[in-house]
Amino acid sequence: MISFESDYIAGAHPELLKRLAETNYEVLPGYGTDHYSESAKEMIKKVLEMPEAEVEFLAGGTQANAVIISSMLADYEGVVSAATGHISAHEAGAIEYTGHEVLQLPQKDGKISACDLERFIAEFEDDPNHEHMTFPGMVYISWPTEYGTLYTKMELEEISCICRERNLPLFIDGARLGYGLMSRACDITLPEFARLCDVFYIGGTKVGALCGEAVVFTHGNRPKHFMTSVKRRGALLAKGRLIGIQFDTLFTDGLYMSISAHAIDAAEELKDIFRKAGIPFFVNSPTNQQFVILENDRMERLKEKVAFSFWEKYDDTHTVVRFATSWSTRQEDLDILRQAIAEIYGSSEA
Amino acid sequence: MISFESDYIAGAHPELLKRLAETNYEVLPGYGTDHYSESAKEMIKKVLEMPEAEVEFLAGGTQANAVIISSMLADYEGVVSAATGHISAHEAGAIEYTGHEVLQLPQKDGKISACDLERFIAEFEDDPNHEHMTFPGMVYISWPTEYGTLYTKMELEEISCICRERNLPLFIDGARLGYGLMSRACDITLPEFARLCDVFYIGGTKVGALCGEAVVFTHGNRPKHFMTSVKRRGALLAKGRLIGIQFDTLFTDGLYMSISAHAIDAAEELKDIFRKAGIPFFVNSPTNQQFVILENDRMERLKEKVAFSFWEKYDDTHTVVRFATSWSTRQEDLDILRQAIAEIYGSSEA
Amino acid sequence: MISFESDYIAGAHPELLKRLAETNYEVLPGYGTDHYSESAKEMIKKVLEMPEAEVEFLAGGTQANAVIISSMLADYEGVVSAATGHISAHEAGAIEYTGHEVLQLPQKDGKISACDLERFIAEFEDDPNHEHMTFPGMVYISWPTEYGTLYTKMELEEISCICRERNLPLFIDGARLGYGLMSRACDITLPEFARLCDVFYIGGTKVGALCGEAVVFTHGNRPKHFMTSVKRRGALLAKGRLIGIQFDTLFTDGLYMSISAHAIDAAEELKDIFRKAGIPFFVNSPTNQQFVILENDRMERLKEKVAFSFWEKYDDTHTVVRFATSWSTRQEDLDILRQAIAEIYGSSEA
Amino acid sequence: MISFESDYIAGAHPELLKRLAETNYEVLPGYGTDHYSESAKEMIKKVLEMPEAEVEFLAGGTQANAVIISSMLADYEGVVSAATGHISAHEAGAIEYTGHEVLQLPQKDGKISACDLERFIAEFEDDPNHEHMTFPGMVYISWPTEYGTLYTKMELEEISCICRERNLPLFIDGARLGYGLMSRACDITLPEFARLCDVFYIGGTKVGALCGEAVVFTHGNRPKHFMTSVKRRGALLAKGRLIGIQFDTLFTDGLYMSISAHAIDAAEELKDIFRKAGIPFFVNSPTNQQFVILENDRMERLKEKVAFSFWEKYDDTHTVVRFATSWSTRQEDLDILRQAIAEIYGSSEA
Repeated sequence: MISFESDYIAGAHPELLKRLAETNYEVLPGYGTDHYSESAKEMIKKVLEMPEAEVEFLAGGTQANAVIISSMLADYEGVVSAATGHISAHEAGAIEYTGHEVLQLPQKDGKISACDLERFIAEFEDDPNHEHMTFPGMVYISWPTEYGTLYTKMELEEISCICRERNLPLFIDGARLGYGLMSRACDITLPEFARLCDVFYIGGTKVGALCGEAVVFTHGNRPKHFMTSVKRRGALLAKGRLIGIQFDTLFTDGLYMSISAHAIDAAEELKDIFRKAGIPFFVNSPTNQQFVILENDRMERLKEKVAFSFWEKYDDTHTVVRFATSWSTRQEDLDILRQAIAEIYGSSEA
Repeated sequence: MISFESDYIAGAHPELLKRLAETNYEVLPGYGTDHYSESAKEMIKKVLEMPEAEVEFLAGGTQANAVIISSMLADYEGVVSAATGHISAHEAGAIEYTGHEVLQLPQKDGKISACDLERFIAEFEDDPNHEHMTFPGMVYISWPTEYGTLYTKMELEEISCICRERNLPLFIDGARLGYGLMSRACDITLPEFARLCDVFYIGGTKVGALCGEAVVFTHGNRPKHFMTSVKRRGALLAKGRLIGIQFDTLFTDGLYMSISAHAIDAAEELKDIFRKAGIPFFVNSPTNQQFVILENDRMERLKEKVAFSFWEKYDDTHTVVRFATSWSTRQEDLDILRQAIAEIYGSSEA
Repeated sequence: MISFESDYIAGAHPELLKRLAETNYEVLPGYGTDHYSESAKEMIKKVLEMPEAEVEFLAGGTQANAVIISSMLADYEGVVSAATGHISAHEAGAIEYTGHEVLQLPQKDGKISACDLERFIAEFEDDPNHEHMTFPGMVYISWPTEYGTLYTKMELEEISCICRERNLPLFIDGARLGYGLMSRACDITLPEFARLCDVFYIGGTKVGALCGEAVVFTHGNRPKHFMTSVKRRGALLAKGRLIGIQFDTLFTDGLYMSISAHAIDAAEELKDIFRKAGIPFFVNSPTNQQFVILENDRMERLKEKVAFSFWEKYDDTHTVVRFATSWSTRQEDLDILRQAIAEIYGSSEA
Repeated sequence: MISFESDYIAGAHPELLKRLAETNYEVLPGYGTDHYSESAKEMIKKVLEMPEAEVEFLAGGTQANAVIISSMLADYEGVVSAATGHISAHEAGAIEYTGHEVLQLPQKDGKISACDLERFIAEFEDDPNHEHMTFPGMVYISWPTEYGTLYTKMELEEISCICRERNLPLFIDGARLGYGLMSRACDITLPEFARLCDVFYIGGTKVGALCGEAVVFTHGNRPKHFMTSVKRRGALLAKGRLIGIQFDTLFTDGLYMSISAHAIDAAEELKDIFRKAGIPFFVNSPTNQQFVILENDRMERLKEKVAFSFWEKYDDTHTVVRFATSWSTRQEDLDILRQAIAEIYGSSEA
């Protein structure tokens, strides 16, 4: 059955597998000290136009979030996040496991507002009892968000500005960064993006790699002895080449961007299918994740032909579901979906 | 200056100091294994009408919360609490420090509803991705709450019932338990109360002791080797007698209840003062903490004569402040307050 | 330059890469719930002759150690290990990061003795102050050890017997398990081995995989909601297929054993080279890691031709170094080494 | 029965209880912000001749150790300690609970040598794999040690010098500091002592207080927002006055030193009793803890008359036991002990 369940339903982009095979017998040192990892880091820094950046590789998103946050926060600090932020809701307490609190802000379509952030910090600072409270020590946002939405350049600038005034590092979870950058709604370049944050990562797992996220510290702020902190969190791969070679390939000849663009094209076609069938969107997402509201009985019928993800109950007769595209989405998948929806929703215009 | 700032502005009830002095030279073993600690435990179990209970002493409220929660939760569990619960807001991340998440529920006047609790658990269980989320592993409520309010017997029964059905321990923070029990709004006896929860503590620090909270595990559910867990959290006093003797005294001849009743009488008079001056209550509290809304300029004038606590901003011209009574509140304090308010608010009926 | 630096200098056994490529476009669910992971688990259980076993995949050795130990220990417990155990010395405090102490036992050639273990536990139990100490809650050994040595079947039985009497889980770190099983000194079968421990893992990273360790809980003792515990430690891969497919391949047609046997053959030849050159062994290892003592000047000369690992200073003029073989060691590598040593150590018998 | 079991068998020095009673009704702010705490801090800084010092109060020794170490170490660091250091052996893993490793050094009579310390650090630094190991981040010693012994001024200087060269904070556990300073073997003044360390504490619990340790950061190195770190570890007392008033009294008119001197006089008499009875010392201690070797049958007889502590098994027929004196030791206690020993050991010279 064809599937839009997530952006990690297939293996890796074939170019990555090919490079893994080609380099397989090369003798390389362990723990990410190999020359492919070095080359990948250099290429990323070049794309970022940021020679001073420090790049480190980790295996997955939750791991990256926990390692970054716990190694950057002071003892008495927590991380500010949207209530729907991945670290708040869907990481099984991975941040708390490291001893730190996630301080939740209200959100709209997965985004926090600069205004709410500023008020939250001001209220903390003004509270005469704030020494009995967790200090906000970092701001976490996702780009794209968990609902596929994007902060605009201006919104990012406002949040970044508040963070810099308060000396709060801004950390952007870019598990799906490529899909944001290639979105038609994107109004920021990667170098501009990088300059607004203190640390972020370029997601690999969801953008064509078997595993791997490239963490970027933007201004010499990589925690001291970071490799040891990674090791003691069980996050250091002996064969660091596995991630290094993949990112080296993703950042050769613009592969990362081109496969992201492919997924965005597919997502646009997806939106067109829903739009034409009159299926309402739960949120207006310009990236590879699309959230729509289905009537439960039609949802059940659709499920027999196409796989997608349950997201949340909408009301007693409707459900919010997610369709995701990725590098591996084929035209054929979209065609089958269009056909299936036409059958279930009437020939609206098949 | 007289003060209503908190219920821990004075030392200990004089009877406790007297007993500490009388027993001072007695040779006693350390770490809470002395006979006064034993006797205190026995007396508490008797008052609870619960011979099967296990009682342990800790030094303070945040410590008790962190030790209890972290030693009872499984690795993958968090604790459910009102967003205004002490563990959520005012313990500087003490629960997160132990590696566990506080799962916040909406509240009204400091209380969660059985309905919200049930929905929260149901949504967790129904979520197909719940293995990627923190499991609710315990329910925490305060009685009285942080706003001085009380759950009724029926409300406690409902919450307890939900907890028992789901096998979730119910933990009640009784830092101000005495003030709840002696409240005129209290419709539950201490033995009834004890039977509804799985673990709770009888607050000493805020009810006449220098320090100390008596933790009660109600049905043989004290975590195994609890003393070692207490030790490794730095919470085991070498001279355990300090707390044992104080609780032995507090539970001799009903002292704990009589000093709590004294504070409640004082709080009722406090309410009368505010009511007669036409000062609005922020919340209707039947216990020793009273939250009122003052105009900022009158607040400043009152501050010159009487000490009280800032609680939160109400609007641009008003502030919520807290007045607390305790075992140490004197009639004289109330008289001075009545006079001061009369002066500032007009002789409404001084 | 040819290298004997470690058993993770190359990529993966080509058969694993081939299978990753073949299955690359197959739509699979995430987080290890795919059918290849299932199949791999079934095959491992079959090889273990242990249908009741529960198998879980993790990415690396330190991660496996930390996840297993921290999810199995009670709050008040620590893990007993040889002072040279990997968790004691070379994981940057990964166990302590989870809040637990490593209780060190003396070792000989990397092994603890049943006798020392028994004495350690007895002394703990007899100590009247033991409630102020970390309880031994698990025994950790490596097989092969960090020095390449093997516990005999009888030694394992003795240790296992002590553990079972005291109800202490025995955890065997099998990062190099294949090399132990294929060693000429091995006197135990894999099913016998499995039956002696409570939990162990079958190392993939050092035995031909890109990454991955197969954790085996032998008798229904997998910690409850283990997946959530894995997630919150940042150790859950979205594309669990990466490890599942590799183990599925390793346990098809005995590949795991045959590539291990290859490395052992190579190691035997390595030993022969050293023996014939009169180079003394630091420890008598029957597995793929060989530790020899080199004079510093000859070591420097050898370094120019062949890569190996510094282990520890022996004395002012000698150094202990490690040579490791693996699935990727070629006859050609051994020939070059033999030649290089002959040149430096005289034509002892080249 | 008279007791030499520990230095915490009685309550508090009567002067402390008297002051607690005298100040009992005074309205004071909470959390250690009261003027008695301030005054105590000032007096301690004066006695230390160290106006730049920062003093903070905590409730007990294990708590002080865990709070200090965990708030001063970086993520990747552990604390170096003698294998017999209190944090290594008798705090139930309290340091590991905070996520940090205790790196053990060999000891003699409870003391580490500067030489061993230097070698340990050098070996760590020289190890090419040291990024995979816990970094030594602090040195912990006890003065007096757990065996009652004292480092000489020269030994402290050597250790301090190594620490400063490596930028490693030196932390001295002074749970029994007074007994060290008043020892006849002490060759260092308190100001000299303070200048050699980066952080230490002046023990109250074992030197006449009900509870309390005064932590001293010697050169502006108190961790930022220390109060919040204390709070989140459950170590902040609401009625901070309890400790402040006690230390204020202990450091008024030299009480801390005079009660320590009293215990040392008693310990000297204790030694005389053992010496004259021909009872061998396990270690030569110049402070208030005396460790002697008793034949098991005589030990049993002595136990019927006097209480003391089991320390460790010496051999099959002998046991090491501890006798401790304190501010509360009376001449009468010593007389009864002398008599009891004379009866059991023969009139050696009673």
